[in-house]
Amino acid sequence: MAKILKGAPVAAALDEKTAAAVSELKAKQIVPTLAILRVGEREDDLSYERGAMKRCAKTGVEVKNVVLPGDVTTAELLSCVAELNADETVHGVLMFRPLPKHLDEKAVCAALSPAKDVDGITAGSMAGVFMNSGEGYPPCTAQSCMEILKYYNVDTAGKRAAVIGRSLVIGRPVAMLLMHANATVSVCHSRTGDIPAVTRDADIVVAAIGRSESITADHFTGGQTVLDVGINWSEKKGKLVGDVAYETVEPVVSAITPVPGGVGSVTTAVLVSHVADAAGRGVG
Amino acid sequence: MAKILKGAPVAAALDEKTAAAVSELKAKQIVPTLAILRVGEREDDLSYERGAMKRCAKTGVEVKNVVLPGDVTTAELLSCVAELNADETVHGVLMFRPLPKHLDEKAVCAALSPAKDVDGITAGSMAGVFMNSGEGYPPCTAQSCMEILKYYNVDTAGKRAAVIGRSLVIGRPVAMLLMHANATVSVCHSRTGDIPAVTRDADIVVAAIGRSESITADHFTGGQTVLDVGINWSEKKGKLVGDVAYETVEPVVSAITPVPGGVGSVTTAVLVSHVADAAGRGVG
Repeated sequence: MAKILKGAPVAAALDEKTAAAVSELKAKQIVPTLAILRVGEREDDLSYERGAMKRCAKTGVEVKNVVLPGDVTTAELLSCVAELNADETVHGVLMFRPLPKHLDEKAVCAALSPAKDVDGITAGSMAGVFMNSGEGYPPCTAQSCMEILKYYNVDTAGKRAAVIGRSLVIGRPVAMLLMHANATVSVCHSRTGDIPAVTRDADIVVAAIGRSESITADHFTGGQTVLDVGINWSEKKGKLVGDVAYETVEPVVSAITPVPGGVGSVTTAVLVSHVADAAGRGVG
Repeated sequence: MAKILKGAPVAAALDEKTAAAVSELKAKQIVPTLAILRVGEREDDLSYERGAMKRCAKTGVEVKNVVLPGDVTTAELLSCVAELNADETVHGVLMFRPLPKHLDEKAVCAALSPAKDVDGITAGSMAGVFMNSGEGYPPCTAQSCMEILKYYNVDTAGKRAAVIGRSLVIGRPVAMLLMHANATVSVCHSRTGDIPAVTRDADIVVAAIGRSESITADHFTGGQTVLDVGINWSEKKGKLVGDVAYETVEPVVSAITPVPGGVGSVTTAVLVSHVADAAGRGVG
């Protein structure tokens, strides 16, 4: 029986710290504010937005909702980003992606100020993650993995970690965060011949490949900690499932995050903590 | 007996391509030009400068030497960098590091335009390496490793690679370049408990830890390709040695770069190829 690494207590602990930081800032007349920039009405975006707003309400972070129609032009969106960059009352910007296909997503991401990039979408944040320089912020999902490990006292220093997936949203940044935390990290991906050979050697496995229950029991041995980043809809089961085949893997390993209720339930807590941090930068 | 992966033919092949590209650009009245920015008279810098200038002469790249006194101020150096950024006749800038201690190296690196950063020292280049976006250039030593693998037809796709060292000059960027080339990459470092356990599982091992002959035969098995990035002076032997204990490792592995005459002899060829590339960007 593995220990179940639920996200809720991790998020609650983060929220407590964020709420305290927000109170302190408000006492100094600084109101930490997150701008949520949404183009159109995608259901995924609306759902995440509701979650983020709830988390903001809980921690005292203000929200500025900016909603643009689905047929907005790149130029209009860019000028909106420029306004948010210049707006001193806004400390962080969450912009939903993917943007509608007619928009130049690369240019829009590049336009956002890394200092307000609380979800790690700019090149500045990516350089910060790679260089460990503190510039920008890591993508919230990647940092959520680290927060879970920290909360449950899973040691990373000197341990071996395997990351399955090399995306810029999660695989590559979480590999870097684990490396900065002194783990010996291996990154597997679609071209890796024998993924189980890599994951079986690891103490910590992060599954972020985006394929339903594709990481099976033969990938694991006893004593391992598994973070399942996948959130996939299973037609067959009629419910959300992870990238890890939970029912068969859970009995094998030492600790595992559930889906839902695991990594995904920590991301908005990380997001608002970034907003509080951004608001606090430069404050004496 | 391992195959000896000498750097000279790799550099020669690169030079040939660079020279052709330079000729084409000159026919269009563009003279690819490298500015070499040196502070003081460190022997290491002078030696590398001579090598770079020789390589430039060989390939037709012009050199603009900028030498500042060892007691230059950060402000003076920054204004020099700004001038080079603005100078349309300069396509790449090589700035020697480490800078003297009184200078703000971080600020100076940040000031250089990533488009002219032909040796991968800016955050823009680092983001480019991490994101595989093509912005900036990877550090020349990291790319030299890839050029050696390419020249000697060492396959990377689906292969396992172990990088020993996680520096920003070599370990981290070469890990990313190998990953972009579809290798499954593990990064070892000072906190890795059992480095041989990682390297023995790899098809390609990059040693970049900066400690004389510290990577010994027990790190290897047959069939492996070893790139030794270390260049260390051995008092005992009275000569340059790598990070790999060459005499005992060479009989074990399948292919290995010598020191000197291996990775280090390719770096200036990569550098001038970056200058030609930078000069050619935006040319129809």
